[in-house]
Amino acid sequence: MDKNRCALTPPMGWNSYDYYDTTVNEEQVRANARYMSEHLRGYGWEYIVVDIQWYAHRPGTMREEHQYIPFSTLEMDGYARLLPDPERFPSSAGGKGFGPLAEYIHGLGLKFGIHIMRGIPRIAAHCHCPVLGAETTADRIADPSSICKWNPDMYGVRDCPAGQAYYDSLFALYAEWGVDYVKCDDICNTNMYPHRPYSARHEVEMLQNAIQKSGRPMVLSLSPGPALIEEAWHYETYANMWRITDDFWDNWGLLKNMFERCELWQSHVAPGCYPDCDMLPLGKLGKGFGAERDTRLTPEEQKTMMTLWCLFGSPLMIGAELTLLDKDTLALLTNRDVLALLNPALRPRQLMRDGEQAIWIAADGKAAYAALFNLSDGERTVGIPLEKLPLETPGRAKELWSGEERSLSGKLETKLPEHGCALYRLG
Amino acid sequence: MDKNRCALTPPMGWNSYDYYDTTVNEEQVRANARYMSEHLRGYGWEYIVVDIQWYAHRPGTMREEHQYIPFSTLEMDGYARLLPDPERFPSSAGGKGFGPLAEYIHGLGLKFGIHIMRGIPRIAAHCHCPVLGAETTADRIADPSSICKWNPDMYGVRDCPAGQAYYDSLFALYAEWGVDYVKCDDICNTNMYPHRPYSARHEVEMLQNAIQKSGRPMVLSLSPGPALIEEAWHYETYANMWRITDDFWDNWGLLKNMFERCELWQSHVAPGCYPDCDMLPLGKLGKGFGAERDTRLTPEEQKTMMTLWCLFGSPLMIGAELTLLDKDTLALLTNRDVLALLNPALRPRQLMRDGEQAIWIAADGKAAYAALFNLSDGERTVGIPLEKLPLETPGRAKELWSGEERSLSGKLETKLPEHGCALYRLG
Amino acid sequence: MDKNRCALTPPMGWNSYDYYDTTVNEEQVRANARYMSEHLRGYGWEYIVVDIQWYAHRPGTMREEHQYIPFSTLEMDGYARLLPDPERFPSSAGGKGFGPLAEYIHGLGLKFGIHIMRGIPRIAAHCHCPVLGAETTADRIADPSSICKWNPDMYGVRDCPAGQAYYDSLFALYAEWGVDYVKCDDICNTNMYPHRPYSARHEVEMLQNAIQKSGRPMVLSLSPGPALIEEAWHYETYANMWRITDDFWDNWGLLKNMFERCELWQSHVAPGCYPDCDMLPLGKLGKGFGAERDTRLTPEEQKTMMTLWCLFGSPLMIGAELTLLDKDTLALLTNRDVLALLNPALRPRQLMRDGEQAIWIAADGKAAYAALFNLSDGERTVGIPLEKLPLETPGRAKELWSGEERSLSGKLETKLPEHGCALYRLG
Amino acid sequence: MDKNRCALTPPMGWNSYDYYDTTVNEEQVRANARYMSEHLRGYGWEYIVVDIQWYAHRPGTMREEHQYIPFSTLEMDGYARLLPDPERFPSSAGGKGFGPLAEYIHGLGLKFGIHIMRGIPRIAAHCHCPVLGAETTADRIADPSSICKWNPDMYGVRDCPAGQAYYDSLFALYAEWGVDYVKCDDICNTNMYPHRPYSARHEVEMLQNAIQKSGRPMVLSLSPGPALIEEAWHYETYANMWRITDDFWDNWGLLKNMFERCELWQSHVAPGCYPDCDMLPLGKLGKGFGAERDTRLTPEEQKTMMTLWCLFGSPLMIGAELTLLDKDTLALLTNRDVLALLNPALRPRQLMRDGEQAIWIAADGKAAYAALFNLSDGERTVGIPLEKLPLETPGRAKELWSGEERSLSGKLETKLPEHGCALYRLG
Repeated sequence: MDKNRCALTPPMGWNSYDYYDTTVNEEQVRANARYMSEHLRGYGWEYIVVDIQWYAHRPGTMREEHQYIPFSTLEMDGYARLLPDPERFPSSAGGKGFGPLAEYIHGLGLKFGIHIMRGIPRIAAHCHCPVLGAETTADRIADPSSICKWNPDMYGVRDCPAGQAYYDSLFALYAEWGVDYVKCDDICNTNMYPHRPYSARHEVEMLQNAIQKSGRPMVLSLSPGPALIEEAWHYETYANMWRITDDFWDNWGLLKNMFERCELWQSHVAPGCYPDCDMLPLGKLGKGFGAERDTRLTPEEQKTMMTLWCLFGSPLMIGAELTLLDKDTLALLTNRDVLALLNPALRPRQLMRDGEQAIWIAADGKAAYAALFNLSDGERTVGIPLEKLPLETPGRAKELWSGEERSLSGKLETKLPEHGCALYRLG
Repeated sequence: MDKNRCALTPPMGWNSYDYYDTTVNEEQVRANARYMSEHLRGYGWEYIVVDIQWYAHRPGTMREEHQYIPFSTLEMDGYARLLPDPERFPSSAGGKGFGPLAEYIHGLGLKFGIHIMRGIPRIAAHCHCPVLGAETTADRIADPSSICKWNPDMYGVRDCPAGQAYYDSLFALYAEWGVDYVKCDDICNTNMYPHRPYSARHEVEMLQNAIQKSGRPMVLSLSPGPALIEEAWHYETYANMWRITDDFWDNWGLLKNMFERCELWQSHVAPGCYPDCDMLPLGKLGKGFGAERDTRLTPEEQKTMMTLWCLFGSPLMIGAELTLLDKDTLALLTNRDVLALLNPALRPRQLMRDGEQAIWIAADGKAAYAALFNLSDGERTVGIPLEKLPLETPGRAKELWSGEERSLSGKLETKLPEHGCALYRLG
Repeated sequence: MDKNRCALTPPMGWNSYDYYDTTVNEEQVRANARYMSEHLRGYGWEYIVVDIQWYAHRPGTMREEHQYIPFSTLEMDGYARLLPDPERFPSSAGGKGFGPLAEYIHGLGLKFGIHIMRGIPRIAAHCHCPVLGAETTADRIADPSSICKWNPDMYGVRDCPAGQAYYDSLFALYAEWGVDYVKCDDICNTNMYPHRPYSARHEVEMLQNAIQKSGRPMVLSLSPGPALIEEAWHYETYANMWRITDDFWDNWGLLKNMFERCELWQSHVAPGCYPDCDMLPLGKLGKGFGAERDTRLTPEEQKTMMTLWCLFGSPLMIGAELTLLDKDTLALLTNRDVLALLNPALRPRQLMRDGEQAIWIAADGKAAYAALFNLSDGERTVGIPLEKLPLETPGRAKELWSGEERSLSGKLETKLPEHGCALYRLG
Repeated sequence: MDKNRCALTPPMGWNSYDYYDTTVNEEQVRANARYMSEHLRGYGWEYIVVDIQWYAHRPGTMREEHQYIPFSTLEMDGYARLLPDPERFPSSAGGKGFGPLAEYIHGLGLKFGIHIMRGIPRIAAHCHCPVLGAETTADRIADPSSICKWNPDMYGVRDCPAGQAYYDSLFALYAEWGVDYVKCDDICNTNMYPHRPYSARHEVEMLQNAIQKSGRPMVLSLSPGPALIEEAWHYETYANMWRITDDFWDNWGLLKNMFERCELWQSHVAPGCYPDCDMLPLGKLGKGFGAERDTRLTPEEQKTMMTLWCLFGSPLMIGAELTLLDKDTLALLTNRDVLALLNPALRPRQLMRDGEQAIWIAADGKAAYAALFNLSDGERTVGIPLEKLPLETPGRAKELWSGEERSLSGKLETKLPEHGCALYRLG
């Protein structure tokens, strides 16, 4: 099974984190799935991803002190495998896990994804749980010094056959449920260990091995970032997407900074291999964090974000609660001309960047694009000489957000509002 | 209670680690105590210290894989306080803890010490054990991201009143037992965290607070090293001794390196405050590690070690199994002239050091000393002009290992064997 | 002028450093050029590069103490521009610089390159030399805190218009001489400054600007390595080649290590943009260093080096004295099948690497290759399943060093000697 | 000659830098010396120190761009020894150097000090100047890769006999002039080299050797800070004072931070050995920097600074232009009760410090002191239990700034204004 074939273009979907934090439940997931099926599916959006702590009992009840409650109880089977919290995911009762929910989502023409933490539950190690398919117990494969800085649930798994057996048992279960996408956390940058930030590289390999053995294609997504550019080959060889940034939120500073990260990773976008700019914090956000709000990105910044993510070739995961989506955000997410850039054959390339502006181009043999970005705090004219464009004789250009067309001579130049951009298809 | 008063000179004693590793039992401790009482007590030796894992069940049974067995069972009371393993320490049965053993040792005219790991047992946090004297449970005071790199037993304690209550409950118990000396590990240098190597500074303060509240004077010893010179004030204010090196063993490279560490810490020796060069790996060693052996230090190196430790003012903890002590080692440990240097009023000072030799002096108003060390791999003449000696008109010198006396003129100089030394009292 | 057009495939040539160190003279350069013209030109070899210190008087005369004599005298014109030492390069006398030598080399059907140090001669700054084309003097553009760790000749140039004018004056002169290739040193990794290893990034831009203004296409090569992967975009935008390693010599450890570096840089090979594995230390080496010798690479290691450099797409610069080339080395350098890999359309890709072996593939739409490397110290069988090869149905394979052909089924596998390799063209 | 004997208490004096920067001239130095002789000498103030660039021609004339003009001309003798700029120091004309000025200052009952940069003038190395007393030239002893980050005048001197000869020739000249104090810069922390911040340790030794050979006692002061605590022994062995901070100016943040530095260095104050808190930026400052101003320290902050410097045992160097001193500042500098603390027998010790307050004590057998500091931004009561005071039964306390006396019981406590302090002599 070629791990790249399950994601020949960057995955597009919705993820529960930005709106629900740790608290999402089945009904909410289903409602978002229905919305996607009805309004977004036709544009390529297809993944519904349940993010962190679906296995936790009463998550979010100590929000003032802890995002992730230390030493709380988790839903777990007899083989140290976490199961959905049945209080929040009623269809999982009776050992059915995420099977019924996945089936529902598949029935809507969509795909189903889950979030996992690297490793094995700490409590399983302390209780010496048996591991399915291996003559061993959790205490023998759990590494007591391999922990996550920000989440207290798991111990890392040792690099040994019994450890692989544990991961195999997990992915066999996920395949049985019908999982299409696994986002594994605390693995892309194990930031507990500043001197060994890729300390779990063997677990990345174990994850891909377990997917291969499961027989079911699943996208493998690695978090959190920043990914390490020195490990690019390893990510590309074993995963489908890897976060190139710590959590991205609706903040201009973070968005401006993403231009630097895209510069760094631009040569590493290929079919099945996607440096990941993280979720799109659009629309309604933050309810699970205790304060529902609208995105703080201005309309211009939203367009800049979508342009960069698409041009660069990042996966697109919507953070908004879909059922509350406004018309403008929906339009932003359903511009077919812009979404057409999500094609790794269109190799993206930064032409220039400084503190005030950035210019990117992308082209394959057939299509050619240029994007002009105003990174400054104020209106600004940004331009590019025609000979720098990735076409021999560009004659016309269509701006893909406004739909305006123009003929070209001398320079492709335009006045852009603060933090704004223009994206041209050249012809 | 002035924390310095319990150690006005550097503590001298025996510690179970170098010979027994994690496996020492009550009978062995008693035998060593008897030996000390009979042969060493008259020279100032007084502490009998039970080192790491006295609370562990079946320690040492996975020696090939682990020094400290992950997720093994520990003897613990209902308030998350570790107790001696009753199989190895029979007198502790019935909730008596180390009380009977301490009483025995006190009866021999000696003092009793124990080793502890910083923090609260992990299993107690996962099981939500109650904390004595606080309306809380272990999961609320244990920090799931504060662990020890090399020992899997504990979680660090959070900086909060309930955390202090837990430490208070520990030291109340130790006071009840009659403990005189506590060596706390994973605290002097928390080497899990290269960027925050003194991450448990609040726990150091909590330990001293708990001693003060216990009402019983106890020496507080911090491990492992290397201690951080930038934190010298904090160690001096809250502890009695702190390791200035990682584990010291019978190896010339480590001994030579100690000269560098003593240079660094020489201004920080004061009554009740001792930079600690670690144990004296003399005589029989290593049985608990699976390979009993004689010390690998040559007789000259042993003398060099004793001279440096005494001159510098380090605590002295014998690593040898005392009941197997040979005559020469016993002589080394009972030279009254040399042991007289263990007096913080004699301020030690390095005069020079390079790769080949080192010269130290020490003096208070009354006595004056000079030590010449040959650090090179071969015989060497080492000398010092008389005007550098810490006496106005030094006329005579007695070499304290050989007992030879000489009158002085021009230079105090002598030929030293490889790694050897001469130690003079000046008059 | 598109900076990539002057090097659509990786530059191939000869460089004086490995054999002559700082001491090469005109007669020696001409002799090597004649050899290349007669024996190598037909295979793509074309650059003759005069390496470091062609401007120094009496270089090499303090070899025991210094490779580069501090504060020695340099040949310089009235505008702080270094000129060839007329004693060693007689044709440069009378202000003709490298013009006559370049003309001679061009007449042989070859191209001419020189080495320069980043910056402006220190002595020019201390003497307040005028700068051509700018109303300024050298002391105003030289940065007294920007120096090279290992060579004492220059100060870095400040980032200002007068600084650009100085670089423009240099490249105007080089264009006049007929220079085709400039290797600039102390610029790719400014290792004097461990916290700012790319401290001269503005000088890289100034160099390319000066080339553009000179009107003459010149390859821009940056030294020394290791280049910084985080700056890949900058190198690609302003230079043609950049060293990914510190000086490479004839040593297996360095060669084995190059596999790691090629893994890191494999996505950054493109037309006009070449990560540079450094010179080929083959044949006779080291005379200028005071000890002429044959390469220490075994015949197998030489083949492994050539295979990796070609497959990866590194520039090829011969270090051997060409006039002393033996038949086997000449054969190694003139294998047309192997040299055909020097084509950036053939995108190289590491399939796997561990301490014992490495496997690479390369393919464009037309040709496909696989290389198997034995990195272990002993004979070893290395193989690859056919489905991993970059061809739909590979039927046959030709090993390009031996010329042997085989038909494929199941696995492409072969037994390789210590440090050896096999390179297959697939069909 | 015992290097400690020339500074048995911390040196007290005036330094030209804070007011004059690089521009001070002879008349100004003489005027300040006269003021000190008349108004300060009786309180222990005695050094008049001419700070940086007394050898430079036209210093300060490129102030907008450079504090130290790159490649400017310097006054130098035929042996690479810098001489006073005769334009600013007319009495130095005719090769008399600082002799006449030193004589004048000695005549006022004061001592004379100068600032030097580590190393040998760069221009001397480029010009191959001879070195007095050695058969060598400057280019052979100058290290072209040893430079100062912030001053372009010098190259470091190599560790070799000819290098020592150069330093010997310097100090022979200084002894001839009658210099009593040398502040050497770019040596205590060679901040050009973040990985080797004490890269010039051999030059520190050479300086002290040269003083010893000169036959004239001179205080050796090392700059800039922060000094490295790991090198405390080396500073103590070869120098008299060493800066524990980068340049200190009249800024509360820097003053508050000094409490942390004093905590770090408190065990290293001894006769002839002084960690140096840097100059006292009081009164009129900054004229040579282009903007004369009054100190920005409030009266309370000034008192806090004087209290900390005196209690800790720092050298005291006045930065103010003395001839413009106001009455309050003069009173601050002439409080005999406070200045009496400048006695290394009074060992200072921090009792506690947090973000809001600090408490220090100091005592020898005879006197005892306590200082309470309010580090918070607002009024605050600070107190200390009597049993923490360094006296068995303290009965009375005199506050040394106000002169108020009080009898003690229970606690020594007082209300302090923002950034204020109280300093008590106990009895």
